[in-house]
Amino acid sequence: MAHRAAIVGAGHTRFGVLDDGPRALLRSAVDGAFASVDKGAERSQVGESFLASLGFGGWQIGNSSAVLSEESGITGAPSSRVENACASGGYALRSGVFAVEQGGSPLVLVAGLEKMTDVTNARRRYWLGVSGDTEWERAAGLTFAGVYGLIAAEYLHRYPGARDALAEVAVKNHENGTRNPNAHFQKRVSREEVLRAPRVADPLGLYDCCPVSDGAAALLLAPADQAHQYTDTPVFVDGLGAGSDRLAVQERPELTRFSASRRAGDEALRDAGIDRSRLNFLEVHDCFTIAELLALEDLGFADPGGAVDLTLSGATRPTGRLPVNPDGGLKSKGHPIGATGVSQVYEIFLQLRAAAGTRQVPGAEAALAHNVGGAGATAAVSVFSRG
Amino acid sequence: MAHRAAIVGAGHTRFGVLDDGPRALLRSAVDGAFASVDKGAERSQVGESFLASLGFGGWQIGNSSAVLSEESGITGAPSSRVENACASGGYALRSGVFAVEQGGSPLVLVAGLEKMTDVTNARRRYWLGVSGDTEWERAAGLTFAGVYGLIAAEYLHRYPGARDALAEVAVKNHENGTRNPNAHFQKRVSREEVLRAPRVADPLGLYDCCPVSDGAAALLLAPADQAHQYTDTPVFVDGLGAGSDRLAVQERPELTRFSASRRAGDEALRDAGIDRSRLNFLEVHDCFTIAELLALEDLGFADPGGAVDLTLSGATRPTGRLPVNPDGGLKSKGHPIGATGVSQVYEIFLQLRAAAGTRQVPGAEAALAHNVGGAGATAAVSVFSRG
Repeated sequence: MAHRAAIVGAGHTRFGVLDDGPRALLRSAVDGAFASVDKGAERSQVGESFLASLGFGGWQIGNSSAVLSEESGITGAPSSRVENACASGGYALRSGVFAVEQGGSPLVLVAGLEKMTDVTNARRRYWLGVSGDTEWERAAGLTFAGVYGLIAAEYLHRYPGARDALAEVAVKNHENGTRNPNAHFQKRVSREEVLRAPRVADPLGLYDCCPVSDGAAALLLAPADQAHQYTDTPVFVDGLGAGSDRLAVQERPELTRFSASRRAGDEALRDAGIDRSRLNFLEVHDCFTIAELLALEDLGFADPGGAVDLTLSGATRPTGRLPVNPDGGLKSKGHPIGATGVSQVYEIFLQLRAAAGTRQVPGAEAALAHNVGGAGATAAVSVFSRG
Repeated sequence: MAHRAAIVGAGHTRFGVLDDGPRALLRSAVDGAFASVDKGAERSQVGESFLASLGFGGWQIGNSSAVLSEESGITGAPSSRVENACASGGYALRSGVFAVEQGGSPLVLVAGLEKMTDVTNARRRYWLGVSGDTEWERAAGLTFAGVYGLIAAEYLHRYPGARDALAEVAVKNHENGTRNPNAHFQKRVSREEVLRAPRVADPLGLYDCCPVSDGAAALLLAPADQAHQYTDTPVFVDGLGAGSDRLAVQERPELTRFSASRRAGDEALRDAGIDRSRLNFLEVHDCFTIAELLALEDLGFADPGGAVDLTLSGATRPTGRLPVNPDGGLKSKGHPIGATGVSQVYEIFLQLRAAAGTRQVPGAEAALAHNVGGAGATAAVSVFSRG
């Protein structure tokens, strides 16, 4: 397996409704990433940085890559913002690996950030809503919950048992979140609570939807052949894949499959030269419970409709044969837009170093991260190993 | 000189107050880029694309990299948005070259777009303003014209003759714009008109400021060693440099030098292995006339204050020894934020192929593009040759 780059450090804030502003969140995640480098790393070694962010909530801070430079103590070094809606983090990792590969920098910093809870619901609905199709869908009243509700309705229509599988995703990810001290929710929910919850966008109820969260995460990347200068336990990026699709769901041939995810997953696995069966767990983009089922199918771990049985069998639980979202996923850990794709890789960094504490997936050697923008308009998938 | 990538096609819309919406602008620029490829190129050859954009004015379209994919006819391929305020285009080119270098794509598309004239002045002032420092500068009333006005005041205080040099920048770039059919302004101005114009932010007057423009530009990049499959006259990217600085001007040691530009310029020239004396013309970021003088000094073509004499000597005119902004620059060609850095490279593509018509710089073999974000918070510089 060829390594494209190594992760040698990673940091993460709490996700949730936080008092901290965007600068403090960014600083905290980046400081954490530096502190996590076993043999030490200097700010001056960072030759390039990338910030994944949709925008900074109510803070009205633009040109935010310069803010990343400032708060990271690396002013001077090139920095740029990568924005692909909810897939910003996965795409920023991709750009970070490209920067490592072109060889000019000892270290490359990839950070993700969102400060979401300091704006009104109305503003946030606009802010998030424009990442979907404005011209035909949002104008008709479709929020993202609405779009995923339509997808879920079609999925339920096709596949018996799907409503129970959605509930199981919520139950499992909430349970997982209780073992992640950074998770927004630290709360178990029962199958009955999920099924009885108030509807948000039929058939999706309250516990089928991820929360609106603040948070940040950061990664330090190094060339694979230099990783051991920084740590004896690097985690390697072995494969990258990404894809795009029509922005409007209505213009796609099928509601219940995301071709961007399928393309990104196939490409990442091919790039890594690894078989699906060798992956020990997955971090997938479960912004709504239906999205976790779609991910399992789009990434090739189940046939269309097969995610129902896979999920209901318990296979995706931490004790199953293919744990999914051991950190709680977007569902329970929270979903600070730009931070999410970076946070997924933070979890993989911990797990593949056997440092995930009470939520450790035993013997994890390889994993995959799957990050979706909009309702499947863009997707990024990456494959990792402990080398 | 080592080539990092080749430009094999480029497209450009008119810049100005346009009826077209963002989708039409993007489509037009990308169609133009494909049409310009002498030996032909297929949409299916584009393996990755990057969109430079601050946002799409009043259109409320987000996840805009998917829109680039759609309008380019390359849906499926990875696409991401790079946003570094006014330096978005230069940084997107950088990411595009990295993507070429990592080797997965026959062609990489880099597009820049802004639709600015369809929102009210108040909205636009907010939209642009947040790319400066909100916390201390914008809250005190400083727009970008205000910040550059302060810089110009300090520069005038230090260097005698500077006010005349600013006027000469305006006169020259307006004159150059009349030879560029895509330029927003097709209007000569006299030194007296510039000096007598209404003040915008003292000492800067109306003709010291670039306009608010709509427009798009697009480039097709290929690996350098495959360039001749597409054209007998590729233009090569030989050097890349970029830098960042504190977002707030007040936190920097000096008002009249942009350290991000200095770093980016030095790095790009070193990367290209070319001496300044071998560059035949420059495309620099003249959002205000003072910015062209700063650029000449920051890029090492004049000592501090030396841009006054250099400019007044006529050296930067099309007939001088170092033509600057032969396309009219931001000042006269217009400044659709995300498109600007890409448009600079479009001009270099034409000039180095001897295809710039009445504004051709005779015998141009090498050139440099300089793109600034905010008031120097980020900068990207690239060096090009005809090989």
